[in-house]
Amino acid sequence: MIVVIKKNQEQKQVDNLINWIKDLGLNVHLSEGENTTIVGLVGDTSKVDIDLIRTLDIVESVTRVQEPYKNANRKFHPADTIVDVAGHRFGGDNFQIIAGPCSVENEKQIIEVAEAVKKAGATLLRGGAFKPRTSPYSFQGMGVDGLKLLKKAKAETGMPIVTEIMSEEYIDDFDGVDVMQVGARNMQNFDLLKRLGKLKTPILLKRGIAATVEEWLMSAEYIMSEGNPNVILCERGIRTYETYTRNTLDLSAIPVLKERTHLPIIVDPSHALGISRFVKPMCLGSVGAGADGLIIEVHNDPAHALCDGAQSLRPEQFEDVVNCVKGMLPVVGKRMDR
Amino acid sequence: MIVVIKKNQEQKQVDNLINWIKDLGLNVHLSEGENTTIVGLVGDTSKVDIDLIRTLDIVESVTRVQEPYKNANRKFHPADTIVDVAGHRFGGDNFQIIAGPCSVENEKQIIEVAEAVKKAGATLLRGGAFKPRTSPYSFQGMGVDGLKLLKKAKAETGMPIVTEIMSEEYIDDFDGVDVMQVGARNMQNFDLLKRLGKLKTPILLKRGIAATVEEWLMSAEYIMSEGNPNVILCERGIRTYETYTRNTLDLSAIPVLKERTHLPIIVDPSHALGISRFVKPMCLGSVGAGADGLIIEVHNDPAHALCDGAQSLRPEQFEDVVNCVKGMLPVVGKRMDR
Amino acid sequence: MIVVIKKNQEQKQVDNLINWIKDLGLNVHLSEGENTTIVGLVGDTSKVDIDLIRTLDIVESVTRVQEPYKNANRKFHPADTIVDVAGHRFGGDNFQIIAGPCSVENEKQIIEVAEAVKKAGATLLRGGAFKPRTSPYSFQGMGVDGLKLLKKAKAETGMPIVTEIMSEEYIDDFDGVDVMQVGARNMQNFDLLKRLGKLKTPILLKRGIAATVEEWLMSAEYIMSEGNPNVILCERGIRTYETYTRNTLDLSAIPVLKERTHLPIIVDPSHALGISRFVKPMCLGSVGAGADGLIIEVHNDPAHALCDGAQSLRPEQFEDVVNCVKGMLPVVGKRMDR
Amino acid sequence: MIVVIKKNQEQKQVDNLINWIKDLGLNVHLSEGENTTIVGLVGDTSKVDIDLIRTLDIVESVTRVQEPYKNANRKFHPADTIVDVAGHRFGGDNFQIIAGPCSVENEKQIIEVAEAVKKAGATLLRGGAFKPRTSPYSFQGMGVDGLKLLKKAKAETGMPIVTEIMSEEYIDDFDGVDVMQVGARNMQNFDLLKRLGKLKTPILLKRGIAATVEEWLMSAEYIMSEGNPNVILCERGIRTYETYTRNTLDLSAIPVLKERTHLPIIVDPSHALGISRFVKPMCLGSVGAGADGLIIEVHNDPAHALCDGAQSLRPEQFEDVVNCVKGMLPVVGKRMDR
Repeated sequence: MIVVIKKNQEQKQVDNLINWIKDLGLNVHLSEGENTTIVGLVGDTSKVDIDLIRTLDIVESVTRVQEPYKNANRKFHPADTIVDVAGHRFGGDNFQIIAGPCSVENEKQIIEVAEAVKKAGATLLRGGAFKPRTSPYSFQGMGVDGLKLLKKAKAETGMPIVTEIMSEEYIDDFDGVDVMQVGARNMQNFDLLKRLGKLKTPILLKRGIAATVEEWLMSAEYIMSEGNPNVILCERGIRTYETYTRNTLDLSAIPVLKERTHLPIIVDPSHALGISRFVKPMCLGSVGAGADGLIIEVHNDPAHALCDGAQSLRPEQFEDVVNCVKGMLPVVGKRMDR
Repeated sequence: MIVVIKKNQEQKQVDNLINWIKDLGLNVHLSEGENTTIVGLVGDTSKVDIDLIRTLDIVESVTRVQEPYKNANRKFHPADTIVDVAGHRFGGDNFQIIAGPCSVENEKQIIEVAEAVKKAGATLLRGGAFKPRTSPYSFQGMGVDGLKLLKKAKAETGMPIVTEIMSEEYIDDFDGVDVMQVGARNMQNFDLLKRLGKLKTPILLKRGIAATVEEWLMSAEYIMSEGNPNVILCERGIRTYETYTRNTLDLSAIPVLKERTHLPIIVDPSHALGISRFVKPMCLGSVGAGADGLIIEVHNDPAHALCDGAQSLRPEQFEDVVNCVKGMLPVVGKRMDR
Repeated sequence: MIVVIKKNQEQKQVDNLINWIKDLGLNVHLSEGENTTIVGLVGDTSKVDIDLIRTLDIVESVTRVQEPYKNANRKFHPADTIVDVAGHRFGGDNFQIIAGPCSVENEKQIIEVAEAVKKAGATLLRGGAFKPRTSPYSFQGMGVDGLKLLKKAKAETGMPIVTEIMSEEYIDDFDGVDVMQVGARNMQNFDLLKRLGKLKTPILLKRGIAATVEEWLMSAEYIMSEGNPNVILCERGIRTYETYTRNTLDLSAIPVLKERTHLPIIVDPSHALGISRFVKPMCLGSVGAGADGLIIEVHNDPAHALCDGAQSLRPEQFEDVVNCVKGMLPVVGKRMDR
Repeated sequence: MIVVIKKNQEQKQVDNLINWIKDLGLNVHLSEGENTTIVGLVGDTSKVDIDLIRTLDIVESVTRVQEPYKNANRKFHPADTIVDVAGHRFGGDNFQIIAGPCSVENEKQIIEVAEAVKKAGATLLRGGAFKPRTSPYSFQGMGVDGLKLLKKAKAETGMPIVTEIMSEEYIDDFDGVDVMQVGARNMQNFDLLKRLGKLKTPILLKRGIAATVEEWLMSAEYIMSEGNPNVILCERGIRTYETYTRNTLDLSAIPVLKERTHLPIIVDPSHALGISRFVKPMCLGSVGAGADGLIIEVHNDPAHALCDGAQSLRPEQFEDVVNCVKGMLPVVGKRMDR
C-alpha cells in the first residue's frame, strides 16, 4: 500500500500515522521528495483499513498494491479452482449448464421441467423454494416444501440441484442440496456468508446488484476464510442508468475475474435481461467472453400460455440455446461434460 | 395499472391475459383503439407482479398507477407519522440530531462521547456494536459487549440509543435499545425485516446503496405489514459513477419521499461523504432540502490524532454544526426539541 | 401516448390539457374510471414533448406507446438496412472488421499498420486525425495532415478509411473519407449531426458515454431526418460505478437494438475496456451477442515496446482475434466478405 | 505521479518506461522494494497520459498526485475567483439568482417575465434562444431572433442576460450577451470550448450529464488555457439509476469543488429535478451546501395554465423561494447584492 502525504504537513501528524502503521505489524518504507512524502507499507496489508487512511487530513491519496483478498486471489493460487458438484466440474476447460424453473410450484411441474432440461442438455437442475421478492405481497416461494420437491426431482432424474438460501435459520433443511445459492440481495449478508463458510457444500455466489468486482471477491473471501473453498461466482447484471433491460449484464467482468481469481464464474442471463427473447444472444455472448457455465430459466407448461415471453425459455428454445453454445465452445477451448 | 397490448396480437393470447388478471380478483377496463388495445386493471393491484406482465410477448408497456406500497403510502395516510423515541419525536415539524462514534470501543470512550454530544445538542446517541465490514479481516465490532456499554451510556446520560442489528439471531440482546438500525447492505434482507416487523421498537431503515425510492419504501412495507409502524427512513448516499466522495448523497430523495410517504426521513452525511470536512455543508444542505433529522459521527479522543480528518467530527466541530442547523431550522419551519 | 390524470383534479385543468393536445393535431381518446382518467393520444406523437406533460401537476404518469424515432425504427422499416462502404456491407448477415491505430502518427506508421491489418483480415482501416482529449494539454491529433496520410494509406492498400470528425468547420477536408465517425462526446452535438445528415457518406455514430438506447437512436434520427440513411451504430461502453475497466461494455444493447432498429451495429471493445488483454474475449462476446462488426485498435511498432499492453493489439494478436471470430460466425449465421 | 511496477518484470521493459518518462522532460525517482518497484514522476505531469501508462502490462497501478488542471486549480490560485457580470459578482461571499423562462417565445413574454423576476429579486435574466433537444422533431428555439428579444429585455430592465450557445457558427450573434452558457451535452465539445476561451465574456459551464468533477474541471481548463478566466460552474444533476427525478442533483459536488477550485459554482435545480414542486427544497439545499448562486426557471403566463406544475415556477412561487434563500444566507456567510 502506498500513501502519499500532502505537502507541508506537520511532522507530528506524519509520525502519528507511521507509528500507527507500525503498530499494525507492518514495515514502513519512507521516500521524501521535494513536494511529497511517499509512505510505502510493506507486509500483509489486507487487514489495513484503506478507507480510514484515505480520509486523514494529511493524506493526498492511497493506492493499494496488494488486493485485499487472499483465498480468492489468483496470485496466491495460480491454477483454476475446479468445483466438483456430484461429478460435474465447474472451472478449467469445463462448461456447465444449470436450468430449471424460476419457482418450484408442484411435484408434476418440477419433475417435468427437470426431465425436459436434462434431455435438452442441462447438467444441473435449478428451482426456487425461498424467493426474495421486493414486495411483501408477492409469492415468497414454497419454502421447505419446495426443497422436498426439488430433492424428489433429483432422485427421479439424477441431476444435482441448485437452490437459494436466504437465512441461516433454514440451513438444516438444505441437507441434500448440491449447490446453495446466495442471491444478489444477500451478497453482503455477512452473517449468512460466515455460516455457509463452515460447510463444504459448493456455494453459488451471485453478484450484488451494484457490487464492484472487489466487493464481490471480498464476499467470496468471507466464505473461503471460514474454510469452504467451493465458491462459484455468478454474474447476473448490474444496476445502471439504462432501463431497456432489467439490469446491464456485465460480461467484461468475466475476463477481469479470470485474471484476478481462480474461482469459476458462470452467467445468469435470464435474470439480468428479464426478457426471454434476449437470453440466447447473451448466452452466446457469455461463452465468447469466457464464462465457465450458464444458469438459465426454463418452464414447461404449454397450457400456461401467459408465461410466453417472460424471462423463462420453453424447453425447445432452451435446446436451441444448448446446441448453439456447443457449437461455440471449441473456439474458446471449453467442453461440456456430456 | 395500465397494460398496453402490441398491435396485431392473437386474440387468444389477449384473452389469456385478461382471464389471468380477473383470476387475481381485479376488474378489467378494456379500451380498443385503431393501433393499440389498452387494458386497465381496477382494484388492489399491489399484489400484481408488474415484472411478469412486462415480459409478456404481447405487451408493449405497463404503467403502474397505484404505488405497490400501502402502509407507507401518504395517499392512504395523509398526515405525517410521528415516531416517538423516549419522548423525542421524529417527523412533523420536529428535528432530531443523533450523534456518536462509529464503533463502541470501550466504556470510557462511549460515555465521554455521549456526554460531549449531549452537551453540544444531540438528542440521541449512536454507536456501532455489530459492524458490517466489506472485509472479513476488518474489525467486526464488539458485538453483545458493545450493546452492554451502549446501555451503560444510556443509563449515565439519559440519551436513547441507536445501533445496528445485522441478524435475527441477536434480537434478544437488543432489548433496551431504543432504535434498531438496519444497514444499507441488509435493506433487502427480507427475513430480518419481517422479524423486526413483529416488534414495536422504532426501526431506522437505511437506504440500500443502489436502492430506488420505491424499493426502499417496499422494504419499509415489509416491516409495517408485519405490524410495526415505527419506521424512520435514512438517506445515506447512493452509488454512482463519481468517485470523489464515497457515495453521492441524494438530497432530492427528501422532497420526493415527503410527497410519497408519511414516514420521517433523516440523513447520514458522515457515511455518504466519508470525509469529515464535507459533513457540515451536507448537514446544512439536508436541512434546506427538508430532512427531519441527522445522524452524525463524532469522536472524542484528542490524543488519537490519527483520526483527524476521518469521517468523524470532533465535539467542537459537531457543536458548530448543531448551531448552524439551529440557525436554519426556522426557515424550513422545524424546531429541535430542546 | 397514454396520459393518466390524478384523482380529483379540476375539470378546467384537464380540459386545458386536452385542448392543448388537440392543437398539436392529435386525436384524444378519453376513458374515465372511478379513480383515474386516462387520456389516449392518437396520431403522430413523435412531436409531443413527453417531459412537459410528465411535469404537469394534474398528471400521474405518461407512457409512450409509439417510439419517438421514425426513420430509425424497425416498425416502419422491417428489413435490415445494409450500409455499403465501397463494396463492404454492414448489416444483414455480413460481418466487418475495422482496424488500425489509435492516432495517425506519420506516413510510415499508418501504411505499415494498414498493410498489416489488411493481411490479418481487416476490411476497413481506422485511424484518428482529430482526437477528442479530456485534457487541453494532451496531443490533439495531426488534424488535416493526418487526413492526408489516411488517404495515402487508402490509395496504397485499397482499404476504405474510417476517421472521426469533431467540428463542422473541417467537413470539406473529409472529402475522400469513406466513413465519418461521430465520437461519444459529440453524440448530442446536434448542429454537427444535422450537418452530417446533409451528406450521403456513411456515419459511424458512437454511443454517448451515458446515453440511453433511445437517446442514441434519436441522435441517429437527427442524421436520418436530414436525408442521410447511412448510419452505423457503435457500442463503446457506458459509464457505471464499476472502475476495473474504463467503461462497462453493454452487449445487451445489441439484441435490444436489433429489435428496435434496422440499422447495423458494431462494437468497439478497445475503447470500452481500455486494456488490450481484455479485447479478445469481448470481441468473441460481441459476436455471440449478434454484432455486425468490430472496430479494433492495432499498432505495428515492435520497437515501441512501451505500448505493449495498452489498448492496442499487435498485428499477430489481432490475427488471432480475426481467426477466432471467423470460427464463431457460422453459429450466429454471419460471414465476413472475404 | 506514482507508478507501481508489477513484480518480476523484465528490466528492459522497466527501462523503456523510465526513458520514455525522461523524454517527456520529467525527473524519475526510483524506489525498489522486495515485491514492488515504485517510480515517482517529478515535474509537470499535467501533460502525461495517465491512461496510457495504466494500460501497460508491466504496470500495477498509477496514482496521480498532482491534479491534471492548473488554471482551475485552487492550489495555484488559493483565493476565490470573482466573476463580475455587469457589476453582479459571482464567487466569494456573493450570491446571485439568475431567473427567466425556459425558452424565449415572443417579446411580450420575455419582457413580462424579466420584469417579474427582477421585482421578485433575481439579479440576472436567463432565456433559451438555441435549445438542445433530444428529438429533431422538438422545437429547437427561436435562434438569432430569440437573442434579439433577450437583448430588448436587457435594454428594458437593465438585467444582464444569460443564454446558451451551441455552435461556434453563431458566435458573432452573441455580441451583447453577458454570460454565454455551455450546456451539459456540449461540455466536451472541445472545439466550442477552445473558441469560447478566446473571448473574455463569462462562460457558464454546465456539468455533463455523466461527467466526473475532474472531467468538468478539465473542460473549464480548455476555456481558461485559451485565455478566458471567467468561468462559472453550474451543477445541474447527474445521471444515476434512480428515475423518480429527471437527474440526481449532486450537491456533494459543491464542497468538493470549493476545495479543488477557486471558480464560483451555482446550481440549476429546475433542470435537475424536472418538477417545479421540488425546486424550492433543492434551492434551499443548495444554499446550505455552499453554492454561490442559483439559476431558476420562471414563467409568467397566467392564461397558459397548461404549464402549471412543469419545471418552471410562477413569479409568486419564485418570490417565496428568493425570500427563503435570503433567510438562509447569513448562516452560510453569503449575501445577495441587492
